[in-house]
Amino acid sequence: MPRLSDKGLSLPPSPIRKLVPYAEEAARHGVKVYHLNIGQPDIPTPQVAIDAVKNIHDKIFAYGHSAGLETYRRKLVGYYQSVGIELGYENLLITDGGSEAIFMAMSVCLSEGDEVLIPEPFYANYNGFAVEAGIKVKTIPASIDNDFALPPIEEFDRHITPRTKAILICNPNNPTGYLYSQQELEQLRDIVLKHDLFLICDEVYREFCYDGAKHFSAMNLAGLEQNVIMIDSVSKRYSMCGVRLGTLASRNEEVLDAVLRMGQARLCPPYLAQVAALAALDTPKSYFEEVHDEYMARRDCIVKALNEIEGVYCPTPRGAFYSIVRLPVDDSERFARWLLEEFRYNDRTVMLAPAAGFYGTPGLGRNEVRIAYVLKREDLLAAAECMKEALKVYPGRTIR
Amino acid sequence: MPRLSDKGLSLPPSPIRKLVPYAEEAARHGVKVYHLNIGQPDIPTPQVAIDAVKNIHDKIFAYGHSAGLETYRRKLVGYYQSVGIELGYENLLITDGGSEAIFMAMSVCLSEGDEVLIPEPFYANYNGFAVEAGIKVKTIPASIDNDFALPPIEEFDRHITPRTKAILICNPNNPTGYLYSQQELEQLRDIVLKHDLFLICDEVYREFCYDGAKHFSAMNLAGLEQNVIMIDSVSKRYSMCGVRLGTLASRNEEVLDAVLRMGQARLCPPYLAQVAALAALDTPKSYFEEVHDEYMARRDCIVKALNEIEGVYCPTPRGAFYSIVRLPVDDSERFARWLLEEFRYNDRTVMLAPAAGFYGTPGLGRNEVRIAYVLKREDLLAAAECMKEALKVYPGRTIR
Ligand SMILES: Cc1ncc(COP(=O)(O)O)c(C=O)c1O
Ligand SMILES: Cc1ncc(COP(=O)(O)O)c(C=O)c1O
Repeated sequence: MPRLSDKGLSLPPSPIRKLVPYAEEAARHGVKVYHLNIGQPDIPTPQVAIDAVKNIHDKIFAYGHSAGLETYRRKLVGYYQSVGIELGYENLLITDGGSEAIFMAMSVCLSEGDEVLIPEPFYANYNGFAVEAGIKVKTIPASIDNDFALPPIEEFDRHITPRTKAILICNPNNPTGYLYSQQELEQLRDIVLKHDLFLICDEVYREFCYDGAKHFSAMNLAGLEQNVIMIDSVSKRYSMCGVRLGTLASRNEEVLDAVLRMGQARLCPPYLAQVAALAALDTPKSYFEEVHDEYMARRDCIVKALNEIEGVYCPTPRGAFYSIVRLPVDDSERFARWLLEEFRYNDRTVMLAPAAGFYGTPGLGRNEVRIAYVLKREDLLAAAECMKEALKVYPGRTIR
Repeated sequence: MPRLSDKGLSLPPSPIRKLVPYAEEAARHGVKVYHLNIGQPDIPTPQVAIDAVKNIHDKIFAYGHSAGLETYRRKLVGYYQSVGIELGYENLLITDGGSEAIFMAMSVCLSEGDEVLIPEPFYANYNGFAVEAGIKVKTIPASIDNDFALPPIEEFDRHITPRTKAILICNPNNPTGYLYSQQELEQLRDIVLKHDLFLICDEVYREFCYDGAKHFSAMNLAGLEQNVIMIDSVSKRYSMCGVRLGTLASRNEEVLDAVLRMGQARLCPPYLAQVAALAALDTPKSYFEEVHDEYMARRDCIVKALNEIEGVYCPTPRGAFYSIVRLPVDDSERFARWLLEEFRYNDRTVMLAPAAGFYGTPGLGRNEVRIAYVLKREDLLAAAECMKEALKVYPGRTIR
């Protein structure tokens, strides 16, 4: 039997993969499992997008341009303008989700063995893309003690080696919910210029900013025109994760040309997704206001409930719909598994994502979990109650 | 300005990229350009697939399973059964077009610097995927003189090195239209087993076999259960290239597990594509019969017309909808460009794909072009007439 490649052997599994069978088993036994572990929003897709798909007139679902449909790219320019980002349609390449855009950015910017620096905890799938691209992820710890603010810039300096070719940040952040300020981004700019790096900025949660905070895009960092690659996606903005459509934006023509050549090899992004996304650009403002208010209310409700549990700390995230929560437990993976296998409270339990999978440094995150507040408030409260009861009896509790 | 990665710098452009501006320029001047260069069929997508999309009831276009929707995978089993391939749904992973399946197969089977052996001429985008995966393409010339049959098995033996990890074939073949026989595949089996290789078999044109010939799938090679990875796609079968849906099939559990981990990183294949493809499985048999008859008639008509031109040789392909054509010209790229820039016959001209882009060996294919017979018969005949007139006056004609 032929042997798999090094990549085939080292591709990381999804961080919650080990827990899935236990969740399925619990559900099979009639236990209600509150899924705090996943980022699939329960918000409806905008009706305009659904209607556009229902009203298609095509006789053939044909290949389109490798860069994405020109009509869609041109209209996207208006969207970016509306959020204060000035780009031409030639700066926008349409991808198979933000996921493909991340992989493409890594592939065209970093050679085999090069390093990308990422503040940790970070979106775990960056690991998978890095393995596929043959590059190394180096992490700089952010800390729950200051709610996961950007690590001090000297830390970046200290971690940069001759193989470092890019810094990758996610803003607002998954999994921490942290929203980087303009000032933090300007500090990053200086280090990027000093070492002549690429700055890959994953902004797929741009719409999800709370407490009146405004998102500052890396695209608006003056002087970084040749360095910044922005990752975007319709998945969360329009709650249409399943269509698989994203954007890679840059002002660097070499980058755009190389990404287009990758795009030509795989022919084109999905057509029906582009039909939906084109129409979604006409989503009324009220939709976003409602979604914003709903998420802010959910955040307030779950953060408060969790912080009321003895020994638990949950920062108040100002963006996205996740938070990293510190728990008084020996090992959050063991705790998460125990919740699914052994714990029931009124026939209910909770599924959590152990945070260790979001860190690169071994040992970090062992008493943390990531939660996604994509459930209705009453479910979030019920989940928090489960966690409270569970922590009273969990055998591996550390702080009494 | 930071420098692109080695991959970013060496990703090949599409083989016809240089010609596109000339074709656009000709069209701008009112010249009718017959596109014999592209593989976008003009056949309508089955109505059942279009209707399924128009009738969606979803409120949310949500992420699905990374392996593809279970309903779709289970129903696909029936399709494979109907073409004589016995597979369980757990052997099928749904991908973003056949394109992604090819890239995934290369990534999990070949390590950085490993070699994949491919008979040439071959589908040019394999080059792009190979660069992305960091692997090397080694080619074995097939010859137009025997209509591009499988090169002698000793040639494979001669080209295999310690770095060779896989053989990749496309059956029926793009760009040659050659349909490999069961006997040829059995010869390949022996060499695959002898050297413990993977056999990646791209069967996206399975439905397109002519003259009563039956397709023999590599999946049915006894003894190769752990070696074969089959690539499939809905693009051509249902003329829905734009939805972007493919399949990677294997009986090797390690391969399936590694590909699934790649699939988890990019989350899931496109949902609306799966809605269309699921419904397309109910396409009536008459659709395929009509399509088959239409392509066979087109093939007969263009092959005959081309072979009637002095100095031209076009094999009669038994599969897919392409052929490699030998022309009496000095350089087929120069000829193709000249057709677009300088030649007009009744205000018409032809766009061809120079064949050199489909070869790995420098110098091969310089007097060949690839044609795709995806136009109506009258257009194919008009295109052939243009070519006939053009070859009378082309300054670089070699044989008089
Ligand atoms: C930070 C981040 N980036 C990128 C993605 C990829 O999203 P998609 O491929 O659906 O656009 C996600 C999805 O959860 C994410 O959380
Ligand atoms: C031989 C071959 N393989 C794979 C593909 C990829 O097709 P898709 O990604 O649309 O499934 C094509 C498309 O033309 C092809 O010709």
